[in-house]
Amino acid sequence: METNLKSTDLSIAPTVLITPDELLEQWQGHRRLTRRVIESFPEDKLYDFSIGGMRSFALLTMEIIGLAAPGIHGIAFGDWAFDKLSLDHQTPPPATKQEILELWDRVTDEINKVWPQIPAERFHETDVAFGQYEGTVYFTLFYLIDNEIHHRAQGYVYLRALGIEPPAFWDRN
Amino acid sequence: METNLKSTDLSIAPTVLITPDELLEQWQGHRRLTRRVIESFPEDKLYDFSIGGMRSFALLTMEIIGLAAPGIHGIAFGDWAFDKLSLDHQTPPPATKQEILELWDRVTDEINKVWPQIPAERFHETDVAFGQYEGTVYFTLFYLIDNEIHHRAQGYVYLRALGIEPPAFWDRN
Repeated sequence: METNLKSTDLSIAPTVLITPDELLEQWQGHRRLTRRVIESFPEDKLYDFSIGGMRSFALLTMEIIGLAAPGIHGIAFGDWAFDKLSLDHQTPPPATKQEILELWDRVTDEINKVWPQIPAERFHETDVAFGQYEGTVYFTLFYLIDNEIHHRAQGYVYLRALGIEPPAFWDRN
Repeated sequence: METNLKSTDLSIAPTVLITPDELLEQWQGHRRLTRRVIESFPEDKLYDFSIGGMRSFALLTMEIIGLAAPGIHGIAFGDWAFDKLSLDHQTPPPATKQEILELWDRVTDEINKVWPQIPAERFHETDVAFGQYEGTVYFTLFYLIDNEIHHRAQGYVYLRALGIEPPAFWDRN
């Protein structure tokens, strides 16, 4: 079907609230902040401090890592099982903070590598995320980011309870 | 400038990652969850419980309310001072949980009313949010939502520390 359209006629253009590049930068900005929160923990407290029976920040971090690593492949390609880093949400934390940070950085690189390969139409496809949660791909993507913000904020309370000033929430550099 | 375009030629269409209607539903889904977190607090603990010198959940809730109410007007119209509910981020909490919830619901209604009036091009305009923070409007919008997730998660830790099971993070109904 051929139609004559004026390229300046915005009435036919869909609203672009946020572009994929912009959302990647949002996510990576949050990841930079979360990385600083991990760094702020004394090594022992990262593994053994907890409030109200909750998980340690090392375990919360591993949930974030273990969802993001296979998650970005599922989001891009619909392949939720594959993860070249062999991570899932139940992967136990490595033995040191330094190793956790190295794992974090490998996931950061993997997200940057896979992200540009997400097909434009993919965000509005319906899929069963991680083989379990049916929804649109954009919803799953926001869920991963929101879940990171949620657990990171719990790390802020742990740090405050330990008498440690957490990194500024607004600083995403 | 007149050009011939095939309406099926997606190469010219911008990627729609999330539509304004979809992001409104995301935000209101988060707001429904935050409302349940407020409800989960015993009345006295809402006002006086704290960990590590942090603010009470009543005060954290008032920050969320006091940013969202003027925020939605600023996002839509660039008018960051105006708020018909006369709220700002330093408005003290009303005396009861019930009054906080009523204020919450008024802000929810106001967001729903103003949201459809946001001009499509507005999301990528640069503005000085709340007269203080320069950035794109979409960044400010995500900041408000992310800040709510952040402070709500701190409420989750307070509830756990009080021995209260918080509402499920994944339930946005």
